[in-house]
Amino acid sequence: MTTVTELLLPVEKDLELLLSDLRSLIGAGHPILQAAAEHLFSAGGKRLRPGIVLLISRAIDEKSHLSERHKRLAEITEMIHTASLVHDDVVDQASTRRGVETVHSRFNHRVAVLAGDFLFAQSSWHLANLDNLDVVKLLSRVIMDLADGEIKQGLFRFDSCQTFSTYLEKSYCKTASLIANSCRAAGVLTNLDGSRLDSLYHFGKQIGLAFQVVDDILDFTGNDEQLGKPAVSDLASGYLTAPVLYALEENPKLSEIIQREFSQEGDLEKALDIVYSSKAIELSRTLANNFANEAYDSISWLPESPSKESLLKLPEYVLSRLY
Amino acid sequence: MTTVTELLLPVEKDLELLLSDLRSLIGAGHPILQAAAEHLFSAGGKRLRPGIVLLISRAIDEKSHLSERHKRLAEITEMIHTASLVHDDVVDQASTRRGVETVHSRFNHRVAVLAGDFLFAQSSWHLANLDNLDVVKLLSRVIMDLADGEIKQGLFRFDSCQTFSTYLEKSYCKTASLIANSCRAAGVLTNLDGSRLDSLYHFGKQIGLAFQVVDDILDFTGNDEQLGKPAVSDLASGYLTAPVLYALEENPKLSEIIQREFSQEGDLEKALDIVYSSKAIELSRTLANNFANEAYDSISWLPESPSKESLLKLPEYVLSRLY
Repeated sequence: MTTVTELLLPVEKDLELLLSDLRSLIGAGHPILQAAAEHLFSAGGKRLRPGIVLLISRAIDEKSHLSERHKRLAEITEMIHTASLVHDDVVDQASTRRGVETVHSRFNHRVAVLAGDFLFAQSSWHLANLDNLDVVKLLSRVIMDLADGEIKQGLFRFDSCQTFSTYLEKSYCKTASLIANSCRAAGVLTNLDGSRLDSLYHFGKQIGLAFQVVDDILDFTGNDEQLGKPAVSDLASGYLTAPVLYALEENPKLSEIIQREFSQEGDLEKALDIVYSSKAIELSRTLANNFANEAYDSISWLPESPSKESLLKLPEYVLSRLY
Repeated sequence: MTTVTELLLPVEKDLELLLSDLRSLIGAGHPILQAAAEHLFSAGGKRLRPGIVLLISRAIDEKSHLSERHKRLAEITEMIHTASLVHDDVVDQASTRRGVETVHSRFNHRVAVLAGDFLFAQSSWHLANLDNLDVVKLLSRVIMDLADGEIKQGLFRFDSCQTFSTYLEKSYCKTASLIANSCRAAGVLTNLDGSRLDSLYHFGKQIGLAFQVVDDILDFTGNDEQLGKPAVSDLASGYLTAPVLYALEENPKLSEIIQREFSQEGDLEKALDIVYSSKAIELSRTLANNFANEAYDSISWLPESPSKESLLKLPEYVLSRLY
């Protein structure tokens, strides 16, 4: 089974440099944020997002060269992602993420708001200084999508009448938009033609969606330790994901239990029973599979290189988290 | 004495349109934010910032015409300003602003974080779509400055050793940067030459600084009702402004009281006595005066027009709030 470390081997050094750059960039001159930054950037995480941007950047260059602007783009991607996580944790009142205390519970929600704002502000500044209007448009669309997705997620809590496409839109906004538009932006910086840009975007989008569906399955099949957060916490919070939506199609009784917001004793257990005894998990796996396959197919045109090899293994890796 | 309504007369209709556009833009499709947006954009406020951008935009056009991009710029200015207020109120834990409940106290800090993020996100998206990289750079610098200023303000709380230039830098970041860079951006959209752009920037910067010093004086001389917040709340929170810094130069005893964070009974009253019995308020007025005069002088080159007349009256208006 491929590991993340193996996948990211072609850009290992780039990624190390990027993380140390980010750490010094963010803390600089601001003791309060220094601690928050150290905390954020030591929290581990797989750094898959900047890793993917770096792999794409090398894979699309004839000489597998990585330009300063591509490096900066990968940094911006990670800044935007981190900023949105910090604010999401305030909004969702999450106390841990990947088993590590969140900024707002480690410090307080005031520091979390400041740290997130500062990261968003830095990312828009660096973005503007990439000197490419198309890239600015792509990434500012992402920032809109992230805010939009967080709002959508809140709006549809415990709403058992929501459609599958609402769920996919929310997943696109919160997860896939950043990867899709960053991949496209890497192509823009390399002056690729429109159809290549579309396929890079498609790769990022389908990988992002596959990743999200896998995450949503793991909320049902993983344990607290694997997840770094309590299992089934999405369902308990009223966030209805692929497995629940499939189970709702099969067994409308689930709807009642969800709509009363698990207010009666044993409701959450009942809901879980319905999900586990349905084909929901199986169907969700098929969905993730389809997204992963589409991602794989969309980059076959890339010239052979170690970075391309890694990118081709990525869909399989995303699915492998399920086993 | 000139009123705001008189000052903004040349752009009255533009401003009405802008506010109704903003209200529908922000609430669209998001019930949670709808309420927050209504609340924010009905809270009154003088709308001086977009008003100044509109006046400048008309004053620099030969035919006093207002382009769609200039209108959009004024909207973006107000969005950025409002977003930063909403987050500042969370960070400062302010419960009222201009006599009206803040978003985080009316709703909660989760809605305030979302509403602010959504406004910042919308402003960067509209900014990118102005299709002018120089303008994107100017305004993304502002977003950096706002985050930076809020952090600086926190860092120097109760620090009686801070220099006057620290205070001015903080005031530039939190207040003047937005006006200065928006005025310059209006000139960029009209293709003015470099020296004209510099003078528009200077006008905005000095008006912004005058405005901030006047605000800081009013914290000492106004009452709760005039201010829409408790008087002397800056000093009580440890934010040291022009009057305090002047008083510290005259009477070093003040330093002790501040450094022990007003922990002994009667400390705040003692500190106020020292400020009032010194030349601090007088010196602060002179400072505000100088900034206002410099603003006035920097736009003499504008062709005669009703908008220019208003802009020339603006420095006097800013000072008149003191009397």
